[in-house]
Amino acid sequence: MNDFLDRCRGTVGTNHVLTAPGDTAAFLTDWRRRFTGKALAVVKPGTVAEVAAIVRLCNEFRVPIVPQGGNTGLVLGSVPDDSGTAIVLSLTRLNRIRTVDTVNNTMTVESGCILEEVQNAAAEAGRLFPLSLAAEGSCTIGGNLSTNAGGTAVLRYGNTRELCLGLEVVTPQGEIWDGLRGLRKDNTGYDLRDLFIGAEGTLGIITAAVLKLFPQPRAQLTALAAMQTPEDALRLLTLAQGTCGAALTGFELMSDFCLKLVAKHFAQLRLPFPQNYPQYVLLELSDSESEEHANAMLESLITDALEQGVIQDAAVASSIAQSKALWNLREHIPLAQAEEGKNIKHDVSVPISRIVEFIRTTDALLQQSFPKCRMVTFGHLGDGNLHYNVSPPEDEAPDAFIARQAAINRVVHDSVHRFGGSISAEHGLGALKRDEVRLYKSEVEMKLMQTLKHALDPHGLMNPGKVIQA
Amino acid sequence: MNDFLDRCRGTVGTNHVLTAPGDTAAFLTDWRRRFTGKALAVVKPGTVAEVAAIVRLCNEFRVPIVPQGGNTGLVLGSVPDDSGTAIVLSLTRLNRIRTVDTVNNTMTVESGCILEEVQNAAAEAGRLFPLSLAAEGSCTIGGNLSTNAGGTAVLRYGNTRELCLGLEVVTPQGEIWDGLRGLRKDNTGYDLRDLFIGAEGTLGIITAAVLKLFPQPRAQLTALAAMQTPEDALRLLTLAQGTCGAALTGFELMSDFCLKLVAKHFAQLRLPFPQNYPQYVLLELSDSESEEHANAMLESLITDALEQGVIQDAAVASSIAQSKALWNLREHIPLAQAEEGKNIKHDVSVPISRIVEFIRTTDALLQQSFPKCRMVTFGHLGDGNLHYNVSPPEDEAPDAFIARQAAINRVVHDSVHRFGGSISAEHGLGALKRDEVRLYKSEVEMKLMQTLKHALDPHGLMNPGKVIQA
Repeated sequence: MNDFLDRCRGTVGTNHVLTAPGDTAAFLTDWRRRFTGKALAVVKPGTVAEVAAIVRLCNEFRVPIVPQGGNTGLVLGSVPDDSGTAIVLSLTRLNRIRTVDTVNNTMTVESGCILEEVQNAAAEAGRLFPLSLAAEGSCTIGGNLSTNAGGTAVLRYGNTRELCLGLEVVTPQGEIWDGLRGLRKDNTGYDLRDLFIGAEGTLGIITAAVLKLFPQPRAQLTALAAMQTPEDALRLLTLAQGTCGAALTGFELMSDFCLKLVAKHFAQLRLPFPQNYPQYVLLELSDSESEEHANAMLESLITDALEQGVIQDAAVASSIAQSKALWNLREHIPLAQAEEGKNIKHDVSVPISRIVEFIRTTDALLQQSFPKCRMVTFGHLGDGNLHYNVSPPEDEAPDAFIARQAAINRVVHDSVHRFGGSISAEHGLGALKRDEVRLYKSEVEMKLMQTLKHALDPHGLMNPGKVIQA
Repeated sequence: MNDFLDRCRGTVGTNHVLTAPGDTAAFLTDWRRRFTGKALAVVKPGTVAEVAAIVRLCNEFRVPIVPQGGNTGLVLGSVPDDSGTAIVLSLTRLNRIRTVDTVNNTMTVESGCILEEVQNAAAEAGRLFPLSLAAEGSCTIGGNLSTNAGGTAVLRYGNTRELCLGLEVVTPQGEIWDGLRGLRKDNTGYDLRDLFIGAEGTLGIITAAVLKLFPQPRAQLTALAAMQTPEDALRLLTLAQGTCGAALTGFELMSDFCLKLVAKHFAQLRLPFPQNYPQYVLLELSDSESEEHANAMLESLITDALEQGVIQDAAVASSIAQSKALWNLREHIPLAQAEEGKNIKHDVSVPISRIVEFIRTTDALLQQSFPKCRMVTFGHLGDGNLHYNVSPPEDEAPDAFIARQAAINRVVHDSVHRFGGSISAEHGLGALKRDEVRLYKSEVEMKLMQTLKHALDPHGLMNPGKVIQA
């Protein structure tokens, strides 16, 4: 393997082939620090041609490749296993914004660009790139594309898949596919783009993308509504879709218990209501017209919802600071849960029409098998996507509870499956859910996936052990 | 082959295996009546299980399959070649609306449903299914999905691909893949859905789909604006996107020559202006609020555009009849062109920012090589998609001109390629553009497509000769 590493050094420069433990450590441990793998080296090409050359070298030496962006994934998709046979191929040096086209409303960016830099480049051109998620300061757009990331504006703008028009990809054979087309319509053959999006680097390496841009909204409003039940939250959703149309950008459900945890661990964050309610919804509106128009629309929604008894109270942010404060409540839920101690997370989706029944049924099943476990249920209700997390009972040792993770996953995921849902709504499969998903996908679907994997990556070198066991 | 046909009859019933020329004729000739193929039989299964059984039979006897919906395609994608070795597998008996879910905003339909029936079923449930195109009274949703159809509302709602959440597909091996998930978010593996969408039946047979529904708009407005140049049309587009946001549903460019042809052949259709202008744009707005709000938005757009000298005149439809009259102008362009005599059609797209330069450059190139040819340029400017059609010079025999079609295509498609465009924006490749596209796609892309085709359909039985030469 020394020969291999020497040729890697010859390709990307000695400085960009890391082997010293101090240099490689950050690339080998996952974001949630649950797993540390091993690698021959971390290789950091600086151009697409160098990526292709490294992949060809890996083919020659049959060295597996783990592509990596910001390494912020939650399902062990971007770290190597512990065999030490693979290289980590870090895309972070491919970080140029290649072009911004404000008439076509597109920008072409390299995959190592940090999401926040992409957002900023769009904003500087007077446009909006709407993908937004908690890790945006560290995650790369290549990782967002490879996992088809969701985030907080899916309701209005779609997942990352819907925000991409074209790709540049290095194939498992080390060839460069230039599919960087900035077209809204192109029906000239198979949809290669969407095959690479969401494939978590197992079918090729995304090196650049053409992204969709949007006009910047003239007004953005945030409100918090309080209600009795998840049913009421769903009624509010239908009402809001009818009243606000495409202006409805975000619709986040949070249970009272979620916000009690936030209050316990972050005392400075306060609910804007004089009393507590069982459920809350955080609403975000983006309006193309004006502040006044957005306010009138939101006021009319709230008035209707109060009159119809759908909600009990509502608070509208009247400044950016107030809006941030409301979003802080939402974004501190996972942090508060972490402060509270170990817990078991699920990133699930079900058809929106079944979400209420899903919550009720699954809560009951869990209480039956794991009495007094505490449900931390929140998420993107408007997309049917819940972060359905389970904390240990207050009087139980967390480690004993966590040891039962597999059994808890089984109850939740079986229930998701019965409701026609997905056990990974926005995080992907990685190595973490690779085997779990086989319990729920049909043999036909698994076979189709295997066929594609074998056809495109016959030597099984691309991110092995992720998504699918080759 | 008698044994094969007997077993087909045993599977779907004697009545549903057509072999008499009088019965099969309509299935063998394409919509524009340019080609008539031959087939062993037309087989019409009534259920998904029957589709799968017929595909398994075809595998056993190595009989090629041409899946067919409404047979309204424009690129010879749904008719067999003249070898007479294939069956036409008509999906028209699979025409049930399986479910409509107004809370999840989805409907599950079988692929043989006529698009208009799908629209109507959505409307009856108080929802909008926004796909709309000229053939909607005859085309099937399965054909729309298989060609990723575009239409008149792509600007707001996307192509058919963006309107579909899940599929049921019979694989080339005759297995049924149940991917009928009604989820907005599902990141559990490769995107099989988008691989089958737009594959024109060459990778499998779509038998059912979960479609997205939307709230019905409270107001719909149509306006016609007159301007000097395509540049002005583009300036109006940017202005309209800023002013109307997601309310902007349609944005259709038409040259004066297009409307002169309409006036010549359909004297009852009149322009609402006292004089002619070089270019026109048909605008469609859909508003979630109210008629008054939509009117105010449109009025403000028109006032700004007039003040900035972007447009010279504008007419707003004040009734459904007037709106229909404006759309009639647009929809009669292809009919008027047909009345005028034979012509050469191109369905192309380029990045919106380059569309003006594309028109000017390509017009000049054509006039150089084919002096006095007449450009019938119209289309979905908001999507970068032009129907860039060429009629013979008035003083030239049409047949002599049409004989030069290949040379004309070459000039147009070479130009499209130089501008980073697509030679099939919304019609697909079929047999008609299968070889043409090879001139413009890279070897890497063609190889990727071949790899997928061979992997999924190793015997090359699925719609052979379409999209790709296996």
